[in-house]
Amino acid sequence: MLKDIHSGDDLRALGKGELTALAGEIRQTIIRTVLANGGHLSSNLGSVELTLALHRVLDLPRDKLVFDVGHQSYTHKLLTGRLEKFGTLRQKGGLGGFMRPDESPYDVCMTGHASSSISTALGLARARDIMGGSHRVVAVIGDGALTGGLSYEALNDAGHSGTRLIVVLNDNAMSISRNVGAMSAYLTNLRQSTPYRSIKRGIRSGLSRIPLAGRGILRALEKVRNALRTLFLEDRFFEALGFEYQGPIDGHNIRQLEKVLRRAADCPHPVLIHVVTKKGNGYAPAEEHPDRFHGVAPFFVGTDAGQGEQAVENGRIMAAELIDMALRDLRVCAVTAAMPTGTGLSAFAKACPDRFYDVGIAEEHAVSMAAGLALAGMRPYVAVYSTFLQRAFDQILTEVCLQNLPVTLLVDRAGLVGSDGATHQGAFDLMYLGNLPGMTLAAPRDQRDLRRLLQLSLSMEGPMAIRYPKDAFDMGPGMQEGGELKPGEWELLMDGHDVMILAVGRMVELALAVSIELNGKQLSCGVMDARFIKPMDEEKLFQVANRVALVVTLEEGSVLGGFGCAVMEKLAKAGVQVPLLPLGIPDCVIEQGSIDQQMEDAGLTCRQVSERIRERMLELFHGDQQD
Amino acid sequence: MLKDIHSGDDLRALGKGELTALAGEIRQTIIRTVLANGGHLSSNLGSVELTLALHRVLDLPRDKLVFDVGHQSYTHKLLTGRLEKFGTLRQKGGLGGFMRPDESPYDVCMTGHASSSISTALGLARARDIMGGSHRVVAVIGDGALTGGLSYEALNDAGHSGTRLIVVLNDNAMSISRNVGAMSAYLTNLRQSTPYRSIKRGIRSGLSRIPLAGRGILRALEKVRNALRTLFLEDRFFEALGFEYQGPIDGHNIRQLEKVLRRAADCPHPVLIHVVTKKGNGYAPAEEHPDRFHGVAPFFVGTDAGQGEQAVENGRIMAAELIDMALRDLRVCAVTAAMPTGTGLSAFAKACPDRFYDVGIAEEHAVSMAAGLALAGMRPYVAVYSTFLQRAFDQILTEVCLQNLPVTLLVDRAGLVGSDGATHQGAFDLMYLGNLPGMTLAAPRDQRDLRRLLQLSLSMEGPMAIRYPKDAFDMGPGMQEGGELKPGEWELLMDGHDVMILAVGRMVELALAVSIELNGKQLSCGVMDARFIKPMDEEKLFQVANRVALVVTLEEGSVLGGFGCAVMEKLAKAGVQVPLLPLGIPDCVIEQGSIDQQMEDAGLTCRQVSERIRERMLELFHGDQQD
Repeated sequence: MLKDIHSGDDLRALGKGELTALAGEIRQTIIRTVLANGGHLSSNLGSVELTLALHRVLDLPRDKLVFDVGHQSYTHKLLTGRLEKFGTLRQKGGLGGFMRPDESPYDVCMTGHASSSISTALGLARARDIMGGSHRVVAVIGDGALTGGLSYEALNDAGHSGTRLIVVLNDNAMSISRNVGAMSAYLTNLRQSTPYRSIKRGIRSGLSRIPLAGRGILRALEKVRNALRTLFLEDRFFEALGFEYQGPIDGHNIRQLEKVLRRAADCPHPVLIHVVTKKGNGYAPAEEHPDRFHGVAPFFVGTDAGQGEQAVENGRIMAAELIDMALRDLRVCAVTAAMPTGTGLSAFAKACPDRFYDVGIAEEHAVSMAAGLALAGMRPYVAVYSTFLQRAFDQILTEVCLQNLPVTLLVDRAGLVGSDGATHQGAFDLMYLGNLPGMTLAAPRDQRDLRRLLQLSLSMEGPMAIRYPKDAFDMGPGMQEGGELKPGEWELLMDGHDVMILAVGRMVELALAVSIELNGKQLSCGVMDARFIKPMDEEKLFQVANRVALVVTLEEGSVLGGFGCAVMEKLAKAGVQVPLLPLGIPDCVIEQGSIDQQMEDAGLTCRQVSERIRERMLELFHGDQQD
Repeated sequence: MLKDIHSGDDLRALGKGELTALAGEIRQTIIRTVLANGGHLSSNLGSVELTLALHRVLDLPRDKLVFDVGHQSYTHKLLTGRLEKFGTLRQKGGLGGFMRPDESPYDVCMTGHASSSISTALGLARARDIMGGSHRVVAVIGDGALTGGLSYEALNDAGHSGTRLIVVLNDNAMSISRNVGAMSAYLTNLRQSTPYRSIKRGIRSGLSRIPLAGRGILRALEKVRNALRTLFLEDRFFEALGFEYQGPIDGHNIRQLEKVLRRAADCPHPVLIHVVTKKGNGYAPAEEHPDRFHGVAPFFVGTDAGQGEQAVENGRIMAAELIDMALRDLRVCAVTAAMPTGTGLSAFAKACPDRFYDVGIAEEHAVSMAAGLALAGMRPYVAVYSTFLQRAFDQILTEVCLQNLPVTLLVDRAGLVGSDGATHQGAFDLMYLGNLPGMTLAAPRDQRDLRRLLQLSLSMEGPMAIRYPKDAFDMGPGMQEGGELKPGEWELLMDGHDVMILAVGRMVELALAVSIELNGKQLSCGVMDARFIKPMDEEKLFQVANRVALVVTLEEGSVLGGFGCAVMEKLAKAGVQVPLLPLGIPDCVIEQGSIDQQMEDAGLTCRQVSERIRERMLELFHGDQQD
């Protein structure tokens, strides 16, 4: 059936039974594809009927539909001409896992980070008002994304503006993991309440204490209830922000959804529709463990490979070490922003529940609250993905760095991230963390170093950030193995006379491979583990700079404003002249693909890096270099 | 009297009349000092009684008191041993205009940016809970700062945590300028309502339609009301977030304030106290025009110098040009985040009210909403101070740059900002904007260029940022004057054979002075207006690099990750070797003072820069340079 849907009209022509069958077909397609390619399963399975209803009621793409994050947009993709390409989901050159305007005119904007959909929609609605359009603008946002302050800022502004706008709150009582915060409890209350039931009960219980009480008065009060309706709204929150609240609605009942959507579509003011869905609906394992199936790697139905892949993750190693530290030191506590599973901190939460804080999708608050913990003498560890920590840039600078507080940022998913693509690259943390006053920024080359950096962090008196990719590896003992790490100290892993590669984090492994490659071609190339991006090991840096013909910096982050630039600044300031080749992620957008493919896109394979170094050496010596 | 207050006990010993007299003395001291030194007048005058009540009820510094932003902390400073130094307010080496732990143990944390107090307080409270303390933690936040999503994230987390915490909402119905957003309207409703009055009215009006209605039922309902109290709370918002709401309270009635604070201090759960104050209370000009007196430059009572100082501001020039553009192009619209007066956009708001959006203290949403406007074909201009735009770093990167949207950021207060001090320096925008993919970042050297860059921005197809300081100046016609600016094109203002200074923005004027100084000492020093930080004028850069003995980069921003680093990256990538001296704000915190003093602290006076260049030239030529 799905292949016969080419437009909203095709959809609108379907009867109830056909719709149910179509929903089943969509679910099968999503499950099959995600099991093969990886992707977001639970959220997409939960929003099939909601998306069908939206596509039947709205006049797309004339009306504008914005999915928050976009990890519930698979059904939308399947309904808008992307069925045939759906098998390429999240693969290099294939369909993106989030919304992509370059894929379809039905995708209004690029999405990926949470809580921005209402802001985007309000901008679209205001532009429509100025330009004299009449189309509808709809934002679909999960209850998890509603924890983000950005969505509140947008609701506040939209409610005040009074412009025509529909916000569909897709409430599955989960963000990525279990939802947190008062808002979550509040939504639960809304979900469980039949309108006005509690008021009625309250009145009856009040009456029981009144001598006059009787059936007559009860009947009278039934009528009073109508007068009370406008005063005693069941929803207290959204109405305060200027939205008309409609809900809760069963998110798997297409007929009911359409009815409410149609009514809202004609409203001249902002409306919020509260839709209750079941994450993972239609796939039993995902219904039972929606957090496990939020974002999954490819696996086969029936196996539990999604579990296995976590075995060597840096997050697990980090959490194990942090638990050790916490058991010895009562000041150690951990903070995350709706990423307890992804960062590995769920283990910490189990071990030290009273010192674990999941603040929901609220990175700004995570860092700001951690600053408060540190002010009072605690040692907070904030674990957030590199791409999402961008949200807390100001708090890191203004509250943590300027106050020189011992907050440690555990920057997971640093560097290239694979199939999540452009919006999720951890390409900028070396820039936005490495240039802040008072910050100590380090990157472990392997899991041993991750543990040692964590141990070191506890003795720091100011802010520290440790950045690492998801996958962990063990490179065996290094020269400093066993000794304590000193802040700012680099480690010479392999000496070289012609070239020295200063490599950061995961790039150390690459640098060693390049070194072997080049040494095989008569170029003496050394490798320095530049474990600390800030402060630097100036002594080792100047030694090297005065000795070799070419210094190469190698980082898994944007070269602009990154480690290479910091090295050049240090050398220039000191007046040290040496040819330098800065290698890293170039100034462009790296699209989805496997991490290996992305490394190649960024020019960071062994072959590419070796070639760049050889070319530069040839340039330096005007071609008289031995080949 | 003020000089006899040494502790909370001294304060608690005062009777009602004495307190009133003390409040008057505090107001006089604040007015006198702010009129001499500049500073925040309205907000501090509005919170005198509130601060007195807090100091009488709380056991400070054992209890922890956090003022949001800190621009209402003057009374707090006067009560905590800083009366004698108060005359040094906002001056170099003197008292800070916000909270400063290095000034007093009564200042729990450093403040400056809005909306973080509840997060900080929650961190302090959680640390207390873990460490087994029993002290109270209080955050005082203005209604303006409540617009910021960060405060919502914190309320959501705090309300859910259920920990002992008091949030005092100091509601003066103003942020810096007129408050905006639904939250503002909501607070107005709360302010104007007597508890339960509307409920009562509703019930009566309902009863009038009921045949049985009579005095007996009315009496019965009076009793029912008590049963209804817990169900029909006047406040809908804060209770939804898990806070007990108490208010509204008259913020100038110390007795009433103390009563409520004392009750809240014993509550085992989070309480929000809604206090209504009058901004500028006690100083008639400030009461009438609180926005004008929010942050004022030094002036004498009775004059209106605060108005005069705006005459030459870049904001005024920007707004005038933007209005011109808007009148010719219907796509042009303007967005700010509670800074319409400070950015100059209030003039735009008057000229084009339907295309002006003040979203309140909500920088993330300002940028995200602007992205929505741009997606729909508008040309939004977002005017925000450099230091506050840090809040929107992720939105700028993820929504504007990755989508290559024609959003223009007008980055006001860029560079050193004077007496607002460390938390307000515009020292990082060259770093956090200049390293983003697709961004065009420019800095005008004077007001003519500001206008020309604005004109250029309208023809851009992607994101652009224009950064400028508050003060405008006119340097007279340049070489390109009259011609249109081309993106990325630099302008050679003065040629030189030995040294070339690549100067950015306001530094061009300094570079010209340095050039004259050095030329007088037999060093041929040229000046390039490096108007575009990104993209760069590679042609001119490489020409210069191949010609002179030393390239100097001169920027009013942190050298780390800034323009100088970008120049070095460009040269290194191309394999161009040239000695380079990067000058700008060093990797440290520049404290408050006059802008001239801060320039000196940063090593950016004509004498300092000339000296640095001469020294480097001497090093380069091993002392054989003519002196």
